[in-house]
Amino acid sequence: MKKNLIVGQSGGPSAAINATLAGVIAAAQRDERIGTVYGSRHGIEGVIHDMVIDLTDFRELEKLKSTPAMALGSCRCKLPQDFDAPVYQFIDTTFQKYNVGYFLYIGGNDSMDTVDKLSRFYADRMDAPMIIGLPKTIDNDLAGTDHTPGYGSAAKYLAVTMNELIRDTAIYAIKSVTIVEVMGRHAGWLTLAAALPKLLGGQKPDIVAIPEVPFSESFFIDQIREKMKTTDNIVVAVSEGIRDERGEYIGSSAKSGAVDNFGHVYLSGVGKHLEVLVKNKIGCKVRSIELNLMQRCSSHLGSLVDIEESFSIGEFGVQAALAGESGKMATIKRNGDQPYSISMDTVKVTDVANREQLVPSKWFNLEDKKVQGEICRYILPLIQGDIPKFQNAYGLNDYVIF
Amino acid sequence: MKKNLIVGQSGGPSAAINATLAGVIAAAQRDERIGTVYGSRHGIEGVIHDMVIDLTDFRELEKLKSTPAMALGSCRCKLPQDFDAPVYQFIDTTFQKYNVGYFLYIGGNDSMDTVDKLSRFYADRMDAPMIIGLPKTIDNDLAGTDHTPGYGSAAKYLAVTMNELIRDTAIYAIKSVTIVEVMGRHAGWLTLAAALPKLLGGQKPDIVAIPEVPFSESFFIDQIREKMKTTDNIVVAVSEGIRDERGEYIGSSAKSGAVDNFGHVYLSGVGKHLEVLVKNKIGCKVRSIELNLMQRCSSHLGSLVDIEESFSIGEFGVQAALAGESGKMATIKRNGDQPYSISMDTVKVTDVANREQLVPSKWFNLEDKKVQGEICRYILPLIQGDIPKFQNAYGLNDYVIF
Repeated sequence: MKKNLIVGQSGGPSAAINATLAGVIAAAQRDERIGTVYGSRHGIEGVIHDMVIDLTDFRELEKLKSTPAMALGSCRCKLPQDFDAPVYQFIDTTFQKYNVGYFLYIGGNDSMDTVDKLSRFYADRMDAPMIIGLPKTIDNDLAGTDHTPGYGSAAKYLAVTMNELIRDTAIYAIKSVTIVEVMGRHAGWLTLAAALPKLLGGQKPDIVAIPEVPFSESFFIDQIREKMKTTDNIVVAVSEGIRDERGEYIGSSAKSGAVDNFGHVYLSGVGKHLEVLVKNKIGCKVRSIELNLMQRCSSHLGSLVDIEESFSIGEFGVQAALAGESGKMATIKRNGDQPYSISMDTVKVTDVANREQLVPSKWFNLEDKKVQGEICRYILPLIQGDIPKFQNAYGLNDYVIF
Repeated sequence: MKKNLIVGQSGGPSAAINATLAGVIAAAQRDERIGTVYGSRHGIEGVIHDMVIDLTDFRELEKLKSTPAMALGSCRCKLPQDFDAPVYQFIDTTFQKYNVGYFLYIGGNDSMDTVDKLSRFYADRMDAPMIIGLPKTIDNDLAGTDHTPGYGSAAKYLAVTMNELIRDTAIYAIKSVTIVEVMGRHAGWLTLAAALPKLLGGQKPDIVAIPEVPFSESFFIDQIREKMKTTDNIVVAVSEGIRDERGEYIGSSAKSGAVDNFGHVYLSGVGKHLEVLVKNKIGCKVRSIELNLMQRCSSHLGSLVDIEESFSIGEFGVQAALAGESGKMATIKRNGDQPYSISMDTVKVTDVANREQLVPSKWFNLEDKKVQGEICRYILPLIQGDIPKFQNAYGLNDYVIF
């Protein structure tokens, strides 16, 4: 008897998560063992509250591949530890109502926690659906995989944008500091991508700071003073989550100290904090730039390698579910760099959920030529190629909206 | 006897100003009446301090066309009113040293002031070089021209990025407000480009605020409350230079009120100010995004129409100088929209220097279908087509660096 499939998306957006959705839909549509292909609105919440749409006849797969953010919507929902909680009954009711044999969930760390809990909830059930997690995060911090779908496109955005910002900040013959704040609460992978112009043998960004390396404000100011002896326009790439030696987030004290007209605190980021610090200690022209949501949703700069891998891992996940795998996350294994090639596999989601993959300490010294080479060999294959553009009659980017 | 040419760039960067430089170089290189083609470093300062480079044999014109910011460097130098000031003698000395017959200056309002003053300084001199201003500003606020080179590429960046941000902000089923701050101290042209997804018949951005229309904070909050009845995720496009009915910049009081740990004021923009306002008055999730330098230097999203026009106006300026015109600014005249066609002309720089072209009042009501149509007819032809990519061996954007 045919079983049906539900796919959902969760966590933060990327330029590639809809490519994985497209891969799931494509593989499910063409396999005779699968009946109806459902999409769950807002991740697991769509299953809980019975908000699903029928994608069995959806045909705009190519356009979906280059649509940023979650076409199905997302959620930030953490399932309870207690499997007797009513929410699990709601989920089970929906799965039974739609005769679901396969549940695919695309997301990052928190989403894999959902996959893990659902798998354990269904562990002893004969009618359990096959539950597969598909990795997605621009942060590249998921364990058990060489890299995560979504990272390549964000990395490409960061490298290209940093290259442009370096040109922009170089025009005036005066001393200046430009601080570029990059996403990454715990892992520095995205900031390493922003550092590519330097890692490829250039001078800039002059200073790179990632969360894995304790940050000292006084050393930072010393570095700027030193570098200003030989260059006018200092460019800094900094992860939003840098911390001092005690593990305190840089700027966290300023956050509680700064107040506006209403007496409310300014929730400014580390970039603004360092801007004020430089202004204060050095007094030169200084500017901070927060790359904000653009670094995760700029699908016009999507990496073809990333988008195609993201699509493939969606297809792969469906195959794994059809083969009877459950409680697993699909992963990417790198077979080689020259030429770059990958294969896909699965790992037990219990082994990866709630674990983080950080930048290894052997890569901390970005001035080391060997380290530069290794990081470039890791990142460069992931940012290659451009995705096809879909444009409407006005010449503007055109997206799938469910 | 052959005369030589100096070209310089001034003011703020754009994705197209190097295309105009390329046009000047191309036209000068192929005309037998011109000897050496010089580039002045950092605008007029390179002439004042004798910092020029020889571009006669420069060949990477196509790559230069897609290089963002000023390849020659820029300056923010205002020449004095007093023509007896020594700086004019320095300029004259350099012009004589290099046997300069033609001086081309690419820039915005302030740069045209330089062209105007230099022209008047040389007004009665038999050996005066021909002095031509070439318009450039992403702000599109120069008088005497249908639009300015550089605006089309920035407009394209804003429309594409807003389209992506709208997708990103739509994923969660919770009430939220996203405020996107766009450049434009006095004119709303760039914010109108960010509003294109709405002007083309969409719903978002939900609220658009430009400097030409007095802004009321209480009306703004009322608008958000009203719109939240029918939509979850409010998106706002706002010019950095919006003012209240008395002409005070919105958020200027907050700027003097907010202090950090050191007791220093936070120089946050209007986006952050409105973020705090919404947080305070409505209390929902709210985020502000400053598109910052990216909107002026993202040459990877350059408009082909803009880049080609920018190149052509550079060529045109050289022809005008060779024809004996001086004290003029080159301008673009729109001959038609369907098909879009332009021609070029010159105006006396005195008539345009220090004047601003604002968004006309007949275009203030963005809810009016007729107004939407007129603005789209104005902007859309300027953002068409993609510029060729220049990539190095690593697949990254590759630029000319003098």
